[in-house]
Amino acid sequence: MRGAVLYGPRDLRFDERDTPTILKPTDAIVRNSATCVCGSDLWPYRGINPVPQPTPMGHEYCGIVEEVGSAVTSIKPGQFVIGSFFASDNKCPNCHVGYQSSCQNRELVNTAQAPLLRVPLADGTLVATPEVPSDDMVPSLLTLSDVMGTGWFAAHAANVKPGNTVVVVGDGAVGLLGVLSASQMGAGRIIAMSRHDSRQKLAREFGATDIVTERGDEGVDRIKELTDGIGADSVLECVGTQESMMQAIHATRKGGHVGYVGVPHGVELNGEELFFAHVHLHGGPAPVRHFLPELIDLVWKGKSNPGKVFDLTLPLDQVAKGYRAMDERRAIKTLLWP
Amino acid sequence: MRGAVLYGPRDLRFDERDTPTILKPTDAIVRNSATCVCGSDLWPYRGINPVPQPTPMGHEYCGIVEEVGSAVTSIKPGQFVIGSFFASDNKCPNCHVGYQSSCQNRELVNTAQAPLLRVPLADGTLVATPEVPSDDMVPSLLTLSDVMGTGWFAAHAANVKPGNTVVVVGDGAVGLLGVLSASQMGAGRIIAMSRHDSRQKLAREFGATDIVTERGDEGVDRIKELTDGIGADSVLECVGTQESMMQAIHATRKGGHVGYVGVPHGVELNGEELFFAHVHLHGGPAPVRHFLPELIDLVWKGKSNPGKVFDLTLPLDQVAKGYRAMDERRAIKTLLWP
Repeated sequence: MRGAVLYGPRDLRFDERDTPTILKPTDAIVRNSATCVCGSDLWPYRGINPVPQPTPMGHEYCGIVEEVGSAVTSIKPGQFVIGSFFASDNKCPNCHVGYQSSCQNRELVNTAQAPLLRVPLADGTLVATPEVPSDDMVPSLLTLSDVMGTGWFAAHAANVKPGNTVVVVGDGAVGLLGVLSASQMGAGRIIAMSRHDSRQKLAREFGATDIVTERGDEGVDRIKELTDGIGADSVLECVGTQESMMQAIHATRKGGHVGYVGVPHGVELNGEELFFAHVHLHGGPAPVRHFLPELIDLVWKGKSNPGKVFDLTLPLDQVAKGYRAMDERRAIKTLLWP
Repeated sequence: MRGAVLYGPRDLRFDERDTPTILKPTDAIVRNSATCVCGSDLWPYRGINPVPQPTPMGHEYCGIVEEVGSAVTSIKPGQFVIGSFFASDNKCPNCHVGYQSSCQNRELVNTAQAPLLRVPLADGTLVATPEVPSDDMVPSLLTLSDVMGTGWFAAHAANVKPGNTVVVVGDGAVGLLGVLSASQMGAGRIIAMSRHDSRQKLAREFGATDIVTERGDEGVDRIKELTDGIGADSVLECVGTQESMMQAIHATRKGGHVGYVGVPHGVELNGEELFFAHVHLHGGPAPVRHFLPELIDLVWKGKSNPGKVFDLTLPLDQVAKGYRAMDERRAIKTLLWP
């Protein structure tokens, strides 16, 4: 089988890889209906996270179950399933409180940009749709595997409530789906921070009421102007840099909430500054599994169409082109058809 | 008038000070019934926060209103009142959402270790008791000015709910009153981290069910042992050092809450570590004003006796002795009678 392999900075190849097989009785093999490139794939692609050896890539997936291990009971071959980038047993105490991405037995799923994928802990990880979906629904279902689940968690972590004023820092796919999530949770006002026309347009389509193009301190000043000088109730941090994190904290009102989902790179928070900021801070790897049933239901009933976030669609063998377009910010997110 | 003045590290004198007068029409002058020494007074006393010039001290107070400015309408001479270390207008947007210690017009009250005190923004800051209390109730009412209000906020910020498992990091007066607060909020289990007999005893009296004497990673391991390996639902951080903060974060279960009220000294939080810790973090200077009516009611009805935290009582002119006893950890907290 062939799939995406990263050899070094910006050296991504569609290359020969081992065909996955059942290794443990709790595994399943999924034939991907679609996969995609994540913003977080760009960290190793750009060499910021070093890759010491050729590394298979991809952690967003959905598709048809091809085979299950002998201990798998709830997932059956032929079902259309979606799972998270962290496989989880959905049984441990961390799973029980809704933090499946911190499952005590979690395993990273990181070989998804390929036709076939081994998913560990299949019963705990995979959620089946009511039926096999039509092709046009697949992109939206695929987003639930990570990018929409992560935007949704950001909004949850930022305590978005009906009527809230929400700011979204980051106009990547997660930020844009954070806008959609906040809108679906009933936010009264959603301010998207973006300086790119196409992203601003999609943000508005997803429910943004205001756009702020300024960044850093200027961006914070602009948010303050828009919020009677006090800042937003809820701020979604969807980037993961020092600047974006401080922008999020400073844009939040006293007692407000920052939900952060951008994997922090070089972020250090000064305790005293955080203390006097008086904000709530919550985030981490999104417990996608926790939200899957609810999010599948929204897509299935046509109430949510997060698949709009894909603005580039390619056959899987052109995956390198998909990375390049995202790296150069020509594409928001690349969908890959195996 | 004479009051406490800090001249430099461990040089605290009972010295001549200006008698306060009404400076603004929104001021009140309070004749202190009692005042006390705060754990945070020890930062400048020990020279960790430098004091460039002789500095009047004290920010915990309660007493009888002696005089009010011309714009004060709700507070009257003769009333027994309690206020916070941050004067607040109780009207601005930050006050409205319950964060009076981030009032847009806040002023620090920091000359309380004296017979008389000027309190700015009297209408917004001071809360009167139903009547003038008996002397034996004064110590408990005094704690509401800061130390009990801060312990209460820590428990709130840590989302203590009935039945929760709670850990309290820090066995100073704030930590001990954090134990009392958690107990009064219905926590199911309260683990106090302390290695001092007298403090352990008071923690148990206030509602602690378990004592952990280990610190740092060992302390965290012990908490994990006591909580089926997962950590506590709510952790109150009542110290403000790097070690105590990390101890608090690591002792919290995934999705659990850290409430931190120890003013951070040299604390830096690594973004990536915090991300994967998956905890909620909230804290800051306690909005004591927000909690005063509720806490006065509890003391007034005899349901709460936080005044037990005072284990040394001195006349005000022996204030230096009170600092010394706390600095050397011979006393938990010193009450001063003017």
